[in-house]
Amino acid sequence: MRFDLITLFPDFFSSPLQSGLLGKALANQIAEVHLTNPRDFTTDKHHKVDDEPYGGGVGMLMKPEPIFAAVESLPVLPRREVLLMTPQGEPMCQRMFQEFSSSRDQLVIICGHYEGVDERVLHLVTREVSLGDFVLTCGEIPALALLNGVIRLLPGTVGKVESLKLESFEDGLLDYPQYTRPAEFRGWRVPDVLLSGNHQAIAHWRHEQQLERTQKRRPDLWQAWQERQKSFPKEPD
Amino acid sequence: MRFDLITLFPDFFSSPLQSGLLGKALANQIAEVHLTNPRDFTTDKHHKVDDEPYGGGVGMLMKPEPIFAAVESLPVLPRREVLLMTPQGEPMCQRMFQEFSSSRDQLVIICGHYEGVDERVLHLVTREVSLGDFVLTCGEIPALALLNGVIRLLPGTVGKVESLKLESFEDGLLDYPQYTRPAEFRGWRVPDVLLSGNHQAIAHWRHEQQLERTQKRRPDLWQAWQERQKSFPKEPD
Repeated sequence: MRFDLITLFPDFFSSPLQSGLLGKALANQIAEVHLTNPRDFTTDKHHKVDDEPYGGGVGMLMKPEPIFAAVESLPVLPRREVLLMTPQGEPMCQRMFQEFSSSRDQLVIICGHYEGVDERVLHLVTREVSLGDFVLTCGEIPALALLNGVIRLLPGTVGKVESLKLESFEDGLLDYPQYTRPAEFRGWRVPDVLLSGNHQAIAHWRHEQQLERTQKRRPDLWQAWQERQKSFPKEPD
Repeated sequence: MRFDLITLFPDFFSSPLQSGLLGKALANQIAEVHLTNPRDFTTDKHHKVDDEPYGGGVGMLMKPEPIFAAVESLPVLPRREVLLMTPQGEPMCQRMFQEFSSSRDQLVIICGHYEGVDERVLHLVTREVSLGDFVLTCGEIPALALLNGVIRLLPGTVGKVESLKLESFEDGLLDYPQYTRPAEFRGWRVPDVLLSGNHQAIAHWRHEQQLERTQKRRPDLWQAWQERQKSFPKEPD
């Protein structure tokens, strides 16, 4: 899978792309990441990539021409998506990552900067994507989150497929609490059931914990989960 | 403001902390970031930071002892918060960033890794924070988002205070479309109203665009906004 990052700050990515599981996945050629700087596609003497907004307002906007030229310089793979990272976009979620990892060859990711980008850039874009309901100084961090979340799902990145299946959000519930050695630490003991060796009891306890946590912490996810249960009731255990 | 990142991959942060506005803010000592590696606080020969989960399951968990030792090695400032980055936490939002930037001296941020951290680490933690409803390979990316969003709000990071006030999410609505030069690009023209010089008409157009976009793209934000309007109706323009 090919990723093209359109960024005014390509240096931002140098250490994150070399670190941890993402670094290993790229070294193993599970995915390739290319960096393209719109500044290299300016035609004026000062390499100007931003300008003042029409209609007034503080801050600068990214100009359309260098972004168009940068995106148009790239190869086009068959199943391609051009994404703009913006707080006005569709919020990132696990389902989006699954869709991209399973059915796209190329993600072109435009990282916004300054106060945003000229609206006409949307003529290039197939989807606007938001990291969340907050503002950052740059689109590089959202791009990194998307890159990580999608590459993580590609075969070969995470050791065992099972490790992906059992985790948060695959079933719309929060994860259960987890414990490792030592069995007692500063007086806090691991719950007895986890030491019991009774796999059915453990599975039951974990599921109960997931339900309890989701209900308590995330009423929004809880409500969505309950509605799905009504439409597709599970067989009793 | 002081940030302490508890991370197994301190190298991850080297280029992002030097890049763009965040790099400038740190160079100008608007905030300071310290990196602490739990691996440096292991006491066994192999510097073991992870172990298998009790009760079975794939993947490894971060052990509690090195994380406790790392956090306990840090200075304690008066208004301090210890955050764990986890998909089970409270979702990040602009209000959280505002709260932290205006009323905390120190944020200790524990970056989870592998399949997660031993639940007993929560005895150290004052708040669990989630980047969104998806899974990443590491807590370093959520930590970076939080760092950026909070430091951005500290006085001196972004040029004009007004630039912060007018943007997305301050009023619970999505931002309006923005345009810069050229007035016509590939046949797409900037909306006439923005070229009119009529400030009242521009303000009206922008507000209408915010309402329309929010209603169309984010019914959740739209509903919340409408409910706030009922409680605190604005004076008519």
